[in-house]
Amino acid sequence: MRAVDLILKKKSGEAMTQPEIAWLVDGFVKGAVPDYQMAAWMMAVCFQGMNQAETAALTDAMIRSGDTVDLSALPGVKVDKHSTGGVGDTTTLVVAPLVAACGGTVAKMSGRGLGHTGGTLDKLESIPGVNIEIPIRRFFEIVHKTGLCVMGQTETLVPADRRMYALRDVTGTVSSIPLIASSVMSKKIAAGADAIVLDVKVGTGAFMQTIEEARTLARAMVDIGTHMGRRTVAIITDMNQPLGMAVGNGLEVREAIELLSGKIPESDPLYEVSMLLAAHMLLLAGLAADEAEAREKLRRALQSGAGLEKLSMMLLALGGDVACIHAPDMLCAVREKLPVTLGRAGYVSAMRAERIGVAAQLLGAGRATKADRIDPAVGLVMHKRHGMHVAADEPIATLYVNDPSHAAEAAELVRRSVTLSEQAPAHAPMVYDVIA
Amino acid sequence: MRAVDLILKKKSGEAMTQPEIAWLVDGFVKGAVPDYQMAAWMMAVCFQGMNQAETAALTDAMIRSGDTVDLSALPGVKVDKHSTGGVGDTTTLVVAPLVAACGGTVAKMSGRGLGHTGGTLDKLESIPGVNIEIPIRRFFEIVHKTGLCVMGQTETLVPADRRMYALRDVTGTVSSIPLIASSVMSKKIAAGADAIVLDVKVGTGAFMQTIEEARTLARAMVDIGTHMGRRTVAIITDMNQPLGMAVGNGLEVREAIELLSGKIPESDPLYEVSMLLAAHMLLLAGLAADEAEAREKLRRALQSGAGLEKLSMMLLALGGDVACIHAPDMLCAVREKLPVTLGRAGYVSAMRAERIGVAAQLLGAGRATKADRIDPAVGLVMHKRHGMHVAADEPIATLYVNDPSHAAEAAELVRRSVTLSEQAPAHAPMVYDVIA
Repeated sequence: MRAVDLILKKKSGEAMTQPEIAWLVDGFVKGAVPDYQMAAWMMAVCFQGMNQAETAALTDAMIRSGDTVDLSALPGVKVDKHSTGGVGDTTTLVVAPLVAACGGTVAKMSGRGLGHTGGTLDKLESIPGVNIEIPIRRFFEIVHKTGLCVMGQTETLVPADRRMYALRDVTGTVSSIPLIASSVMSKKIAAGADAIVLDVKVGTGAFMQTIEEARTLARAMVDIGTHMGRRTVAIITDMNQPLGMAVGNGLEVREAIELLSGKIPESDPLYEVSMLLAAHMLLLAGLAADEAEAREKLRRALQSGAGLEKLSMMLLALGGDVACIHAPDMLCAVREKLPVTLGRAGYVSAMRAERIGVAAQLLGAGRATKADRIDPAVGLVMHKRHGMHVAADEPIATLYVNDPSHAAEAAELVRRSVTLSEQAPAHAPMVYDVIA
Repeated sequence: MRAVDLILKKKSGEAMTQPEIAWLVDGFVKGAVPDYQMAAWMMAVCFQGMNQAETAALTDAMIRSGDTVDLSALPGVKVDKHSTGGVGDTTTLVVAPLVAACGGTVAKMSGRGLGHTGGTLDKLESIPGVNIEIPIRRFFEIVHKTGLCVMGQTETLVPADRRMYALRDVTGTVSSIPLIASSVMSKKIAAGADAIVLDVKVGTGAFMQTIEEARTLARAMVDIGTHMGRRTVAIITDMNQPLGMAVGNGLEVREAIELLSGKIPESDPLYEVSMLLAAHMLLLAGLAADEAEAREKLRRALQSGAGLEKLSMMLLALGGDVACIHAPDMLCAVREKLPVTLGRAGYVSAMRAERIGVAAQLLGAGRATKADRIDPAVGLVMHKRHGMHVAADEPIATLYVNDPSHAAEAAELVRRSVTLSEQAPAHAPMVYDVIA
């Protein structure tokens, strides 16, 4: 086989065979297929796409490039969730403890944030003492004892994805449905889950800008999961505003703790999306007969404090200071809290969620490049959501600031993220579709 | 500027600016833009194309990557020709001497053959003693004295093209009209010509398979030439059979000598295409008022032997043994001449010219890779053309063989290149269009 022939085949729009895709990925990881051929091939994929069999073959080849985690020693159906990335999206810290409290097993490998989107590992590390760089043996012990654990993805898991993603990032080949789908699913499947609930975000703060795109990505990922014998469901949820009110690591952990403490109403978007994701996780795990039963179990786990207790147990096992469970303000102690006002009144009719994410990043809550260091306490809290009225002198957000050098710029970004209207806008749904 | 942003711009179908293209090519040549980014960008160009201004900017940036030849010290309009590559295409060795004999100045840099297509340098080197690796000063002297010279392209001319072509070759990005057009035109313009006649081949032995493709490429190249102040004309000619009867280096030189000796009739395709190209060269050089006058001058140069004399003078100046002018059989002395018969009779209704080129290559007349060595004497001579009748035991070709190891395979390829019909096929034109 010659790489150039495989590039030409994809360029011409022909479907590649499983051995061809396996040969290409294996050669790339081993260095026999150089970066420039892989880059050309991935650009051809951006234009010509891949069918279902090709995407599954790509995912399989990526998984085979490294180690896989065997979770079979753990009890029950191991159920994972994954979000395609958004702003103020702290669902993992709500969902994993609630599912564990309902008898589920959540052994989850997570990532770090980049750009305007956050990552669960960074959020966990905002809690004093937490160490997510644990040996896999310790990870298994914690899941055995508590029913849940989140750790960093090991270096040996799907090395093909790491190399391909680094190349896609610098060659303009990130935005391809089959490349995104295989990247996500290869990591989820290699990490050993039996069942996977995918949260595909769509809107101004998400990678997918239209519901149609989101549906295509969701369908591609569900097809891969099904093809590889994993029960998979994708939920398409709104990212036209931050999901939670908090954007920033310690701030988002605080919000998750507040939710698990029963302090956030059921009508709240973070509550609504978390419950839906968790309900589907219970369904896939066979722990509820239908969605109503799943929701009822989850509500009880929340109201009884069982979910909060699970989070507390995991944090303790990871070396964390669980004082934060009862005093979460300690996670976001900053020098200054700066209110942001708009100077004009109206109804919030649209938000550019990405700008709000970038504002938090500018304050130190996120990374522009992988080498950047994060300040766990900083970020911002929104006070208004889509559809709410805001007065001219009423803060729409509060910035949590330690280093004031970018505060003015961050405030301006928040201001420019909000569109006001005279009339209250139509209610915007939080959930667009469930794809199974 | 960031290369990834330029890749994304091209990927999205937006037109790039001249400074953007200049930055990219300059960065690539200097090593600041790595191969994988250039490969991704070129693949995006394959899908999205480039407009006229972009293609001109690319050509200009490629020219600026190296030295250019200043031919202004030479008298008159310096006129060049270029063929996009075919089988049995020895027009340069006919056209350049005839144009010089009519008062034109032909200072031409040429290339080597690769795959099934030949190259003028290899043909010249089939003549004992010829050395085309001459200093540029000597090249000028020969043109001054004889009106023509062909030499190898110097290493410092358009290094961007060498690097880009090497990358295109292994990344499946060869077949892009703007990339082909800028590759050809950057070399022609850097080599200093005032006027350029392009021979765009179309058909089974050519890179362009349809007249529409050929027309698009011709238009792109003429636009570049015009944009850069060069009088440029493109002629679209047939490559559905070898242009000459001979395919192989010494064999093609012999055929050119025979043509310049008046031994080939005017109805012959090689004669027809050579005369048309030469006529347009005279027109662009201002040496004839119209095509009829140009043809008349050329006919006289041929009949008087002035053209053959010019070829002889150039070969002598390049150190060649001019005995071949009167005894051209010395150029193709081989161990064995093997006739190829079809074993069936009919009219030649189609030829796969590429297969005939590959057959000659297998015998040692061409290179599969740049490192391969050529046997100057070997190749094949066709005895039949499109439309002619062939009897079952009548040779359709003769193989000129020194190393018999691939002779059977070559004969089979020639056989499989020919389609016979019971009825004589319609006459096929040799010239499809002239684009100015």
